[in-house]
Amino acid sequence: MEPGQLSRPAEPGHCVSGSPSESAAFPASLLSTAGAEPWGRPAAVAAVLPAGGCGERMGVRTPKQFCRVLERPLISYTLQALERVSWIKDIVVAVTRENMEAMRNIIQRYGHQRISLAEAGPTRHRSIFNGLKALAEDQPDCKLTKPQVVIIHDAVRPFVDEDILLRVVIAANEHGAAGAIRPLVSTVISPSADGCLDQSLDRAKHRASEMPQAFLFDVIYEAYQQCSDYDLEFGTECLQLALKYCHTKAKLLEGSSDLWKVTYKQDLYAAESMIKEKISQEVCVVVNTKDEESLGYLLKEVLRKELNCLNITSTPLDHTGGDIQNFLIAQCYSVISVNVVSSDFQKTQKFLSTLGESNLPLLYPVVVVLVYFLDFTLAPLTQEMENLMWIRELAKEVKKRNVLLNGLLINYSQDKQKLQESLRQGASIIGALVKERSSALAGQLLVA
Amino acid sequence: MEPGQLSRPAEPGHCVSGSPSESAAFPASLLSTAGAEPWGRPAAVAAVLPAGGCGERMGVRTPKQFCRVLERPLISYTLQALERVSWIKDIVVAVTRENMEAMRNIIQRYGHQRISLAEAGPTRHRSIFNGLKALAEDQPDCKLTKPQVVIIHDAVRPFVDEDILLRVVIAANEHGAAGAIRPLVSTVISPSADGCLDQSLDRAKHRASEMPQAFLFDVIYEAYQQCSDYDLEFGTECLQLALKYCHTKAKLLEGSSDLWKVTYKQDLYAAESMIKEKISQEVCVVVNTKDEESLGYLLKEVLRKELNCLNITSTPLDHTGGDIQNFLIAQCYSVISVNVVSSDFQKTQKFLSTLGESNLPLLYPVVVVLVYFLDFTLAPLTQEMENLMWIRELAKEVKKRNVLLNGLLINYSQDKQKLQESLRQGASIIGALVKERSSALAGQLLVA
Repeated sequence: MEPGQLSRPAEPGHCVSGSPSESAAFPASLLSTAGAEPWGRPAAVAAVLPAGGCGERMGVRTPKQFCRVLERPLISYTLQALERVSWIKDIVVAVTRENMEAMRNIIQRYGHQRISLAEAGPTRHRSIFNGLKALAEDQPDCKLTKPQVVIIHDAVRPFVDEDILLRVVIAANEHGAAGAIRPLVSTVISPSADGCLDQSLDRAKHRASEMPQAFLFDVIYEAYQQCSDYDLEFGTECLQLALKYCHTKAKLLEGSSDLWKVTYKQDLYAAESMIKEKISQEVCVVVNTKDEESLGYLLKEVLRKELNCLNITSTPLDHTGGDIQNFLIAQCYSVISVNVVSSDFQKTQKFLSTLGESNLPLLYPVVVVLVYFLDFTLAPLTQEMENLMWIRELAKEVKKRNVLLNGLLINYSQDKQKLQESLRQGASIIGALVKERSSALAGQLLVA
Repeated sequence: MEPGQLSRPAEPGHCVSGSPSESAAFPASLLSTAGAEPWGRPAAVAAVLPAGGCGERMGVRTPKQFCRVLERPLISYTLQALERVSWIKDIVVAVTRENMEAMRNIIQRYGHQRISLAEAGPTRHRSIFNGLKALAEDQPDCKLTKPQVVIIHDAVRPFVDEDILLRVVIAANEHGAAGAIRPLVSTVISPSADGCLDQSLDRAKHRASEMPQAFLFDVIYEAYQQCSDYDLEFGTECLQLALKYCHTKAKLLEGSSDLWKVTYKQDLYAAESMIKEKISQEVCVVVNTKDEESLGYLLKEVLRKELNCLNITSTPLDHTGGDIQNFLIAQCYSVISVNVVSSDFQKTQKFLSTLGESNLPLLYPVVVVLVYFLDFTLAPLTQEMENLMWIRELAKEVKKRNVLLNGLLINYSQDKQKLQESLRQGASIIGALVKERSSALAGQLLVA
């Protein structure tokens, strides 16, 4: 399987393999190394994820990797990001004994694959060491295959993409070790013993060491076997261990700002907003006609401006009613179904029941908005609302499956300007529902 | 005026003066320094805010200090945080010539006080120097009074509180310079010329230098006058200038994680969520009865659990209708008005028109939810909705004044369990409206 190919619907966003310009930085000889895959990537790659932290900096009781973002534990997003990369064969997660059961439940509930669990140690380095032992063939309890290169990543950096993973792996294969770095946001200083400024470091000459990192397995495993108890207790930097004990100078690679580590409460908020933004980029507008002059198409155009969307697809409902999986593979978690006449609702219900009955794990809340156009001057608005009360009941049902259903009535005025205003308001309501994904507001009938 | 006293309704949150335990860290002699205020704080304190950055790291065109958070530019939040501290006499903001007019508009629109503008230079240090010149009496265009201590802060750190400001000012008065620091989130490394790891710094021995910082004015002004062009072009650390040119060793003070700098897009999301969370902590439930068995009080209790609120006040409407200012001084931006009979709406309208006509700048969107209880089995729901259609029109009006109005119908069932379920759902809807403050959903009639 080629890098970049998806094995199942997963993290939205771009799965980029190393772009030609980046790959060109590696010597041509690497691209034809014996036993290596195309682009110089070794065949056997595994990942170790230390997830034993207690999250004390977050100021909440739940360890940060288990904090919920859109109702799903943060670590599940990170696992999703790693497992969508088909060439990572095994992912070893080190969790504390007390969180082992919770972790198994997460893996089962969200359908994670290729995951093995190891017991976390009392420090980050000890957890990583335990993860490596699970992969090392010299250990009696090793059930996995020893990889050529191992990635080390943090459970609390959910936005890692295939591009940086590939780059650190290829660089580790060449240099023995590699890691992502970022420019410093703040100046780094060293305090004297009396709490005063001793020295300020030149910001241009230093970098923040981030994750992911990758190592030739034998290098990092040797380093952990050699290193002192002091290192295991107080050390923070795997690259440093490889340098100190194996004389391996890690290659440093600039990563994107998305690699930041969820550390404080504000980071959790930021992660939630980033995820909401990503899943709002794809919206499917379902229309029952191919007439491009129709209200559905008009609404789509207004929506495109309102949502500032990367991609709005429109599909007639007949086609999609039977194949909900297509939506999820296309990573579309927002469906706007436009119904000009209210008898269209059977098709809509069929669509929703298919969504509800699907066995696919819904990794994100799916927003479904049923849009009805109605000339408010012809019939009382409330009469039409009465006709749509079934949406409230249906919403209750599908909410159990993480589907957030709303009805939206848009004024179909004969006055072009008024119609435009209604479409704009409708698009703005849809925008709020898509972006905020608030389960508390599911089931409401809204009016534009 | 004592520290901690507010001059006007401003940033929600706690205005804490130095707590006894922290103040105890300063020598008693300081507390009675000649010319100093109680607690050792000097009488003349000003602040300089460099705001000339172009925000290139944010990946958006608008400089980050002008990016909008809840529709208001980020810098306005920072100004609000500084000006609520009554003992900061002047706040000098350094902005580029091209943003000068925009900055004046922000100051006027949000009613900022004690602000002077200086022209930003091409680098951060040059902008700060220009700000200092505006305060220095040896300059021909100095219109302000030279302060004893000057605070330097970033326009993109809106969560600074009075506690840390007071602590840096007192420490600067004693040591000549002081600054807030934070533990490092990532390990800091130095790369070699070939992009490999040269050295990894001991995370425990280093700190991130954050803001605010404070200086004896004469110390920092002297440092800027002495320093080289190279410093002004490439330097990043004011504390370093004070050390290098005035041999002043800055006192370093641990700050809270709220001091983080809005640097990347995710930080902007985090800032918005933090602000939303803060303004959702105070909710006023307005009830028309003192009967504590009433539905209004029942709803209040369910809301307290749902919102996990610090403070829910309840006030009869008569009292508040005439005095909207009280709400804003109490930093309450969420009003839930419970109306058991729908004829109560005159009072509600009076309340809203007072809010609308008030000349106070509304620094945050105000959420107002009009709650109606109705037995859904006695009358058709849609009939009651028909009666409440005026809310949609009124909402359009008050939205212009940044007031987000919604109606909420709650099923008043005789069945206790059903009533409890409706109250819970109602509270959850109110929670979403209060926390998300989405202007797109204003004017909707919601049903629980």
